[in-house]
Amino acid sequence: MITPRTLKGFRDFLPEMMLPRENLIEAAMKVYRSYGFSPIDTPSLEYLEILQGKGSDETDKQLYKFEDHGGRQVGLRFDLTVPLARYTAQHVAELPMPFKRYHFGKVWRGENTQAGRYREFTQCDFDTIGTKSIVADIETTLIINDLMERIDLKTKKPFTRFKIRINNRKVLSGLLDKHGIADKTTPILRALDKIGKIGNEAVFKEMIGTASITEQQAAEVLKLTELQGSNESVLESLRRMLDGNVLGEKGVTELSELFQSVSVFGISPDRIVIDVSIARGLDYYTGTIYETFLDDLPSIGSVCSGGRYDNLAGLYTKQELPGVGASLGLDRLLSAMEELGMIEKVSTPIEVFLPYFVETRLADYLKFAAELRNKGIGVELYPEAKKLGQQLKYADKRGYHFAVIIGEDEFQQQKCQVKDLRTGKSVECLQKECINFILLQ
Amino acid sequence: MITPRTLKGFRDFLPEMMLPRENLIEAAMKVYRSYGFSPIDTPSLEYLEILQGKGSDETDKQLYKFEDHGGRQVGLRFDLTVPLARYTAQHVAELPMPFKRYHFGKVWRGENTQAGRYREFTQCDFDTIGTKSIVADIETTLIINDLMERIDLKTKKPFTRFKIRINNRKVLSGLLDKHGIADKTTPILRALDKIGKIGNEAVFKEMIGTASITEQQAAEVLKLTELQGSNESVLESLRRMLDGNVLGEKGVTELSELFQSVSVFGISPDRIVIDVSIARGLDYYTGTIYETFLDDLPSIGSVCSGGRYDNLAGLYTKQELPGVGASLGLDRLLSAMEELGMIEKVSTPIEVFLPYFVETRLADYLKFAAELRNKGIGVELYPEAKKLGQQLKYADKRGYHFAVIIGEDEFQQQKCQVKDLRTGKSVECLQKECINFILLQ
Repeated sequence: MITPRTLKGFRDFLPEMMLPRENLIEAAMKVYRSYGFSPIDTPSLEYLEILQGKGSDETDKQLYKFEDHGGRQVGLRFDLTVPLARYTAQHVAELPMPFKRYHFGKVWRGENTQAGRYREFTQCDFDTIGTKSIVADIETTLIINDLMERIDLKTKKPFTRFKIRINNRKVLSGLLDKHGIADKTTPILRALDKIGKIGNEAVFKEMIGTASITEQQAAEVLKLTELQGSNESVLESLRRMLDGNVLGEKGVTELSELFQSVSVFGISPDRIVIDVSIARGLDYYTGTIYETFLDDLPSIGSVCSGGRYDNLAGLYTKQELPGVGASLGLDRLLSAMEELGMIEKVSTPIEVFLPYFVETRLADYLKFAAELRNKGIGVELYPEAKKLGQQLKYADKRGYHFAVIIGEDEFQQQKCQVKDLRTGKSVECLQKECINFILLQ
Repeated sequence: MITPRTLKGFRDFLPEMMLPRENLIEAAMKVYRSYGFSPIDTPSLEYLEILQGKGSDETDKQLYKFEDHGGRQVGLRFDLTVPLARYTAQHVAELPMPFKRYHFGKVWRGENTQAGRYREFTQCDFDTIGTKSIVADIETTLIINDLMERIDLKTKKPFTRFKIRINNRKVLSGLLDKHGIADKTTPILRALDKIGKIGNEAVFKEMIGTASITEQQAAEVLKLTELQGSNESVLESLRRMLDGNVLGEKGVTELSELFQSVSVFGISPDRIVIDVSIARGLDYYTGTIYETFLDDLPSIGSVCSGGRYDNLAGLYTKQELPGVGASLGLDRLLSAMEELGMIEKVSTPIEVFLPYFVETRLADYLKFAAELRNKGIGVELYPEAKKLGQQLKYADKRGYHFAVIIGEDEFQQQKCQVKDLRTGKSVECLQKECINFILLQ
């Protein structure tokens, strides 16, 4: 006999965790679609050459790679961005531009398994490719906001508050430029990205160490990144610090336009925070940067992040493809929701359970269930004519809200008992009326 | 520069093919849920030992397998049934029984690429585990029927007709038993499974050859499998041929009960065909067997198939787990729908396009779009203030139904032009009324 088990870093999803996952994915899909984004899909396996093209040493090390039956060097995708770049370059002639796509899919990274880190996880990306217009940056912000609000609606206990933190890569680049350390951008970004984890002092030391900049320069960088807030005065301070640097000023102007535009739409201004400390490590962002934090659990990190880039697919095509997008951190958000008690532990997607206990009445039970389904009410019929108590125990375990109980007497009178399994209360009504009763709850 | 390309046997999905895919998956999910099935998920990668446990030599050869970073022998799952067996055995203590689960997921097989065969494809399985009750077999039939009907509703041109072919493995087993050739079941099943492809005569020869049975025995088997129809008389003929064989008679009784039960529910009897020729190659089925064919394109093969098994997870647990289920052949059904002209080639999931051409009015366009979305109407705002004609061309290419055109005059009068991009006709109305106009179409 073989011991049933999963690989380290991989996991099974039981129904009670899979249902909220599906709800989140549905919410994201609805929001992305409502802005005109369309779905795409790409293979899980790609030529290794494609995957390693832009990756850092770190992603290369984490790649699941092997030789396939045809002797090709292949790998499992480690994100959805590299496949998007390859896809866009390959199909550019067939794609309408701007190309607005969303992509939900699994990605794999053979990294060290730490708390909450898995070797297989799902990404939910959306991107607008082929336009430099700030309208796409504005929409990206609106989408993140809509998404977080819609997730609220799907749960019993909503997120009370969340913040979308915005930055513009040009601001920092401008500052580094001004101090003559633009060539140190990558190590400085990598250091800054750790502020939340290791604190200012450690980042200060790392910048001096790995980026080889002076203490004074490191202090200037840190001073800049300490600026944050939900009003125009932050922008003024940034302008003063940049002191006429053209690139930096451009960044501030873009940030200002974005901040003002989203503020005119019902996005409460204190939900949008200008925060120059968010750097997102990856050095391919060139404009707006987004991160999203839950006020009640900021420590879990950003649950929806992204940014603007100048050129998505430079490795695969000469055509310049600018774009902007973000990615919902599905697994992280679900962990947060679980920790915040927002997830009901039920293992059924529907509310009504129909016990089958008068053995000779199978056809009648089946007919009754079919009628409910025809009217849009999902219902599970128990498959065996066991004792009612046993069946109700099962219904309770799965988290059903109602049991519609029909015994021989009820069949003869065309009645039923609607039992609310949460309160234990029962109501007798005509079978044809039970739907209204259930819908009213 | 790296040439952007996909691996042989793998493919990208453009939006116009991905949208019908998502619609099909949504339809299947809704139907499965309406009977109380819950989603699960399992890792794409499993221990090789788990995957090879039950596989045939053929599946073993097709496995994508390699050694991971930790020196483990691993493989990509080739179906969702082996993972289901492993999962159920592993979590049996946590799972309510009967356990009704659906699972949508990708699977990988390194097989020879022929027309319509891919090395990565999606399966949409549903199973009821832990009960021997025929109620689960009946529901499986109802679900297949609901699924095919709901897919109809989602498309402009519906399937005119489809047939669910049912059989019971015990009938054939009974006949083989009666003729003393029960030990030849596997090669006989494999031969029978090819009837549709290679015809009766070739199957006859294969049975004599690989199964080493006599010509008379092969003729008897073929005679049995030629019986089919949508009425009780088929069952009578079967009973006569089985001539008192207990196992065979049991199969006929189960088939009869299933046939009668589904016929009482609006499933038109001529949609259910008793067909002893369907064998489904796999020798782990032990009771009811299902296949589903489109009347307009039977040659594409079964689009939804499954059956009943006595023991799902015998390799991983001593607990006997009987069950019944089926799998929607998503890719095959989509190919069929494409061939039948049922798929509209549009690359947008929504209907309304909003050109942005008065540059100074960005905030007003954004506000108008937000209002439509708040009322449940998805709308794409073009991100650049280009010429109207260019924007409408883009809208047309993506397959938008309406463009809501608002120029400076319209803004001042709070009006808009609703242009039907299919007919080319325009109507002027108040901005606040345009939603009604769109919903009425």
